[in-house]
Parts: sequence; structure tokens; C-alpha cells
Amino acid sequence: VKLIELAQKLNLNLDLIDFKNRENEIVENLNTLKDASNSEVSFLENKNYIADLGNTKALAVLVNRENSDLVPENTVSLISDEPYISLAKASFYFFKPLYTPENEKNEPYYGKNAHVEPNSYIGNNVKIGENTVILANSYIGDNVEIGDNSVIYPNVTIYRDTQIGNNVIIHAGSVIGSDGYGFATNKRGEHTKIYQNGFVQIEDEVEIGGNCSIDRGVFSATKIKKGAKLDNLVHIAHNVEVGEFSLLTGQIGISGSTKLGRNVVMGGQSGISGHLEIAPFTTITAKAGITNNIKEPHKIWSGFPFFEHRKWLRLQAKISKLIKK
Amino acid sequence: VKLIELAQKLNLNLDLIDFKNRENEIVENLNTLKDASNSEVSFLENKNYIADLGNTKALAVLVNRENSDLVPENTVSLISDEPYISLAKASFYFFKPLYTPENEKNEPYYGKNAHVEPNSYIGNNVKIGENTVILANSYIGDNVEIGDNSVIYPNVTIYRDTQIGNNVIIHAGSVIGSDGYGFATNKRGEHTKIYQNGFVQIEDEVEIGGNCSIDRGVFSATKIKKGAKLDNLVHIAHNVEVGEFSLLTGQIGISGSTKLGRNVVMGGQSGISGHLEIAPFTTITAKAGITNNIKEPHKIWSGFPFFEHRKWLRLQAKISKLIKK
Amino acid sequence: VKLIELAQKLNLNLDLIDFKNRENEIVENLNTLKDASNSEVSFLENKNYIADLGNTKALAVLVNRENSDLVPENTVSLISDEPYISLAKASFYFFKPLYTPENEKNEPYYGKNAHVEPNSYIGNNVKIGENTVILANSYIGDNVEIGDNSVIYPNVTIYRDTQIGNNVIIHAGSVIGSDGYGFATNKRGEHTKIYQNGFVQIEDEVEIGGNCSIDRGVFSATKIKKGAKLDNLVHIAHNVEVGEFSLLTGQIGISGSTKLGRNVVMGGQSGISGHLEIAPFTTITAKAGITNNIKEPHKIWSGFPFFEHRKWLRLQAKISKLIKK
Repeated sequence: VKLIELAQKLNLNLDLIDFKNRENEIVENLNTLKDASNSEVSFLENKNYIADLGNTKALAVLVNRENSDLVPENTVSLISDEPYISLAKASFYFFKPLYTPENEKNEPYYGKNAHVEPNSYIGNNVKIGENTVILANSYIGDNVEIGDNSVIYPNVTIYRDTQIGNNVIIHAGSVIGSDGYGFATNKRGEHTKIYQNGFVQIEDEVEIGGNCSIDRGVFSATKIKKGAKLDNLVHIAHNVEVGEFSLLTGQIGISGSTKLGRNVVMGGQSGISGHLEIAPFTTITAKAGITNNIKEPHKIWSGFPFFEHRKWLRLQAKISKLIKK
Repeated sequence: VKLIELAQKLNLNLDLIDFKNRENEIVENLNTLKDASNSEVSFLENKNYIADLGNTKALAVLVNRENSDLVPENTVSLISDEPYISLAKASFYFFKPLYTPENEKNEPYYGKNAHVEPNSYIGNNVKIGENTVILANSYIGDNVEIGDNSVIYPNVTIYRDTQIGNNVIIHAGSVIGSDGYGFATNKRGEHTKIYQNGFVQIEDEVEIGGNCSIDRGVFSATKIKKGAKLDNLVHIAHNVEVGEFSLLTGQIGISGSTKLGRNVVMGGQSGISGHLEIAPFTTITAKAGITNNIKEPHKIWSGFPFFEHRKWLRLQAKISKLIKK
Repeated sequence: VKLIELAQKLNLNLDLIDFKNRENEIVENLNTLKDASNSEVSFLENKNYIADLGNTKALAVLVNRENSDLVPENTVSLISDEPYISLAKASFYFFKPLYTPENEKNEPYYGKNAHVEPNSYIGNNVKIGENTVILANSYIGDNVEIGDNSVIYPNVTIYRDTQIGNNVIIHAGSVIGSDGYGFATNKRGEHTKIYQNGFVQIEDEVEIGGNCSIDRGVFSATKIKKGAKLDNLVHIAHNVEVGEFSLLTGQIGISGSTKLGRNVVMGGQSGISGHLEIAPFTTITAKAGITNNIKEPHKIWSGFPFFEHRKWLRLQAKISKLIKK
């Protein structure tokens, strides 16, 4: 879509926009201010990102009037009263097809000894590596690539564009690449969906338990890195990165854009808020809730609110004494 | 089934029952004391509902001997030593067929451009609206109706009788309409299943994440109202009502019969007990557990036990000081 | 596999091993020190099990040099620098096939009136009892046996070797028999999978809600005993035993090898650590986390850290008073 066409689809007031002779350039995608290329459109969602605005390379930025002065010289200000809702509306135009009609599908590429059991659906343009087995009743969406020696158990759903490495095991019922939880809300409390056009990348030696949910990135990737192991019923939100060899036990949840270093261990039913960084070799004990960055590696954290584990133990001992008072 | 036949099936002592000349009336269903019509049978489970007993319009009520005097004049007292267990046994007789044999199935009704991908099962008497897409390997049970422009992702299960609106998105692996958790337990600790003969109603613009579970109502509906958005691995018990535009994030759980007003926001891994009412525009933060009604709108609640958010923050600050003592 | 061949596959230093003339005996399986028969190989994982080492009947034990003296006279010491990693490597050789090729599959045995709906996969050597119904899009793995009058709802996955009794109900999306979470980690923090070669046993009258995950045992069984009822999104780890008539509500999790007595009740989002025993008729309230054995029956426990319920209530009352100070 051309930039001017996108502006029209979003019902922006064209009189307010200086297109700087770029109105006929093709918008290839949406992206964050930081990551946008000069063929992508970005947006200013909240003031925390104003620093990124001045440095963006985006073709254009959805922005309200008061911040439009901060947009770099070569970038178009797409002035909107509600830039985040405009972004949500724009995301719809970059949403990829739900399916490829049967008569337009390419034959999948199968490596030697790859095997697909009955009733599994294989989308368009799929690559399945050597010795990889897809058990019955699973779904492999368009453009999915799976490496060698991997196993997809039954009733797994792998959404389009997912990349999976070698020696990966995904247990039954898990969902890889569903839409992340992203909505723009107007003043009346109504939500507009931000279509999630990114993907999921699962590296070599990863194992994912039963009935997990791993969301695709908003614009780019959610990543499960080499050798990480997920137990059952784990929730991984959009744009999370799970570090190498991390161990995420049953029913843990990680909110959007949080990044774990390598060998992070999380006990059952623990959780981490969004947009955080967790140092390598961090241990988070069962039921803990982490709401801040953890910068120092090799430490143990417990509770909600969370404390260093020893401190939490001492605190619990103090608390339990209250009953005697 | 006729009322007298139902009494016989339940092994009630017929000599104790005054049928008031209604023994041959057809029992069309079971229902609560409050909602039962005069062709339905109800029950007195516990003393909290005695007020409802006097006002019920039910054809008959399962009740123990001591409370049978409180039954209205025109209603039959089905006297039972264990009325709740009798109810559970009765529920079996109103359970609908698990499937319709292939040769008895009606052609589904498909709106213009409705599309069903391979290996999806479509039950008897199904209606699928215009432009709605059912991706592969999903299950659409008997009498399900889905509106226009909706998407059912792969490996979704929609149990019989579910009603789904327009512009609804249901992500992979989610289960809509499974039996609620209802059992009558005898003195030896053994459970009898209460068959769940209600249904689920999902209104327009709702989005449901991956691997959620939404149970059908016991007698009537579980409702997810217009524009509500559910993240992954959310648990909604029987007869819950989720208010319009509510935001339920990952791994939250709501127990039976609780009703949320509009625009309720729940943080990750939070939960609400059963039979409660939550005011509109309530925010419940991550990991909180709500165990009482919330009557005042626009407030924020945290923790377990739960407090108003600011109070909870102050309390946590006080608690953390204990360690210095 | 012969014992000497297994030692070779594991790259053990054969010069260090005294095979006691048993090198050509067939290793039938792996097992714990306690349960291993004289055709099975075991291992010493940590010092807590040294007492079991002296009493094992195993054909051979993977053990480091310093503990090899404690191995019984008739048992072979398979000396390894990293016995647990050797065990993990050995487990691979006892992993059973992922599927049986279509042309090698036996016809399943169906009892009278057993019924399988379309797109369900039935593995090799499966037995399905009288009146049992398998709804569409489910997966029944090799050697699964299901009793009479049971219902398997759609999109359920039952892994190979699972044993299911009579009058069992399994709701949609549940996964029975996926691999437990077992890995041996080396000094560099890299994990080797311990293949889970046990199975799941589900007794009569059990009901399992939607999207639950029940892992198979490592070597032997995970057991859900008679009349137990599981709500939605429940996580049961390997080798857990759920006692008769226990009630496990939504989103609860039980870690590996924990054993519940009969009629244990667990509130929503509660959890239990691994390797514990919970007395019969114990009640665990919502969101509690149990981290120790519970020996006395008929008690109620709450919180995390957990206390007896009344004590927990008193403690919470004391804590809430801190805010006034």
C-alpha cells in the first residue's frame, strides 16, 4: 500500500500532513520507532518513547499534533487525534491471509525420512526437515519451517511463519504463534485490535510441554532460544525472549516483551511482568511475581512482592511471629 | 419425561409425594428455584435459597422432608433424603446427545464466503455466517451458530448449542462449552455428576486467546459480552458473565456464577471466587484473589487477601519493614 | 539391549567396570533403585537415595566412583563421571516408537456400541470398551485401553500406553500422557532429556476438564484414582498420584511424585511441590502453595507460605493491622 492510500484508509486529515514528496512510496510494514526501516510506518504510543521519535528512520510516524515537531526531517508526520488507534487500524492492512486455497498451495518440502501422520494439516510453502515427525491432527500453517529430528505431537497448532529448529519437541495441545494480546482502547473503553504480524522463532533443542501458548511478535519475533525447556500450560506473550537453557516449569507466565537471559529457572505458577530484563542464571521460585528488572545474575528471588530469597525467608519468619503478638 | 416417571427414575418414595394432579405433566428441564418455569423441576440445595423456595414457579421441587412445607401451593414437593444428589441423578435425563449420526445430520447453513478448512468437524444444524472462516482440525458441535466475519483458529472445540456473534476471533486450542465443575457429594465422599445442560453465549467483537476453557452453564448461559478480550489459558467457569469490553489477561480464572461489569481489567494469574459481582471499570492487579463483591466502580484492587491497591502498597511497605526489626 | 552394549552406547570406560559375568544379560528397562528388578538398570541421582542403593535388586546401577563400593554384591556398578546424565542418555534407548506405520497396525478392539467420530486417530493395539464414545479430532495412541461407558471429547490427546477405566469423561483439549519434565543438567548448564517411558492410569468414574495436562510417569505410572474430578487447565506432573474422590479445581498444579490421599480438595490456582504426601480429606484453599508433607487428615490449609486455615486467617488479620501503625 502507498503511504497516501494508507493515510486515506485511516481517515486522517490529509490537509494536515506534509508528505515531503513521499506519498507514493510503498509502506512495507509497521514497526516500532527504533526498528522501523525507511519503508515502514511507526507510531508514538506514549511519552516514554519520545527519545526514539527523534532518531527513527521510519518512512512515516503516526503522531498527534503536539509531537509532530519532533519527527525527523525525512520522516512524514501522519497526524492523528488518536495515533495508537490509527496504528491498530493500520495493522489490519498488513495482516496476512488466514489460509491458502488448496489449489494454490505448493507441495511442502520434506527432508529424508520426514513423516506426517493422518489428519495433520500442512499449509503452503512448508519445509519439514529430515527425520522430523508430525503426529496426527496437528496444524502446520503457511511458511512454517521445521528443522531436522524434531517431533510435533498431536493436536499442536503452529501458526503461519513460525520458524522451528532441529531436535525440537512440542507436546500435544500447544499453540505456537497465536496473536499477542494487543488492543488500542478509545475514551469510551472500546478496543481496536492491533493485528499481530510478527512470528515465533524456536531454536534447536527446545522442548515445549502440553497445552502451552506462545504468542507471535507484534511486528517481529517472539524467541525461545536454544535448549530452553518449557513444562505444561506455560504462557509466553508477544515479543518475549526466553534465554538459552532456561527452565520454565508448569503454569508460569511471562508478559509481553520481557527478555530472559540464559539459564533462568522459574518455579511453578510464577510470573514476570512485561518489558523487563532478567539476568542470566536467575532463579525465580514458585508462585513469585517479578515486577522489576533483575540485573545481577546467579541470584534467587521469591514472593509477591518479590525479594531476594533469603530475605524473603527471613521476612516470612518475621511475619509468622505476628500471630503470637 | 413425565413428572411421575422422573420421580420413579430417582427412586423417590412415591407414598410421601402429593402430586397435586400434576404427575402426568411433562418435565421440560431442570432449573434454579428463581428461574424455573412451570414445566421445570427445581431443587433446594442449601438454606441460602429458602427465600426463593416460597416464590418459585417450578412444577416441582426436590426438597427434604423438613422444608417441604415451604413449597408453594401449586408446586409438587419431590421429597428426597438427599435432594442435591437427586438433582444430580435427574440431570442425566436432560443431557443431550453427544453427537448426531452422520446420516441424520442436516446440511450446515453457510453464509456467503463462509469457509471451512480440511479436517474440521461440523455437527448437525450448524449455522456459519458470511465471511466466517473455520480453520483446520476444529470441532463445531450440534446447533452451534456463528455470526459473520468471525475466525475459528485450528484445534478449537466448540461444544453443542454454543452461540457466537459477529467479528469474533477464537484462537487455537480453546474449548468453548465444556461441562462446568458440578458434583453432588454424599456422606461417604463420593461424587455424582450434575450434567451441565446449559450453553455458552459469546457476543460480537470478542477475542479469545489460545488454550482457554469456557464452561457451559448448568441450566442456562455462560456469557462473554460484547468486545471482551481474553488472553491465553484463561479459565471461565459455568454461569460466569464477563462484562462488555472487559480485559482478562493470561492465566486468570473466574469461578462459577460470578458476574463482571463492563470494562473490568484483570492482571495475569489473578482470580475471582464464585457467586460474586464485580463493579464496572474495576481493575484487579496481577496475582490478586478477589473473594468478595466489589460494589464501587473505577477502583483498583490487589493482593490475596485483597485490598484497595494504594492500601495494599502501603501495607506491603509496612510488611517489608518487619525485616529490620 | 545387552548390558555391555548399553555401557558402550553411554561411552562408559569399560576398564573401570566389573561386569560380574552379567554383561550379556538383557536390560529390559530403567527404574528407580527401589523399584528396579534384576533385569533393570538404575542410578544414584543424589545422596538422599544412598540407603536405597544398598538394597537395590537392579541388574546394574549408574554410579560415580566414590559410591560404587555401596552397590550390592550381585549388582554391576556402571561407573560414570556424571551418572544422572548417563541415565538421561540411557533413557533414549528405551523410548518407544512415536507411531506405528499404517500397514503394521492391528485393528482396534471395539466393545459393543463403541463409537468413534470422524477424524479421530486410533493407534495400534487399542481397546475401546462398550458404549464408549470418542468424539471427533481426538488422538488415541498405541496400546491405549479405555473401559466402558466413557467419553473422550474432541481434540483430546491420549499418548501411547495410557490406561483408562469405566465411566471416565475427558473434556476437550486435554492431554494425557505427555512427557514429564525431566532433564539432567551438566556443569555448563546444558540439559539432556530423560525420556519418559512410563504411562498414565486413570481409574473409573474420573472426570477431567478442558485443556488439562497429565504427564506420564518417568518409569512407571502417574495415577488418577477412582472418582477424582479435575476442573479445567489442571497440571499433573509425572508420577503424581491423585487420591480417590479428590476434587482439583481450575488451574491447580501438582509437581512430580507427590501423592494425594482420598478426598483431597484443592481450591483454584493452588499448587503442591514435588515428592510430598498429602493426607486424606485435606482441604487446600485457593492460591495456597503447599511445600511440606501434610500428615494429619481432615485439616484445611491456606496461603503461601502455608498455614492451617484458622491460623492463616488470624495471621492475615494481624497483618492488616500493620497499616494502622
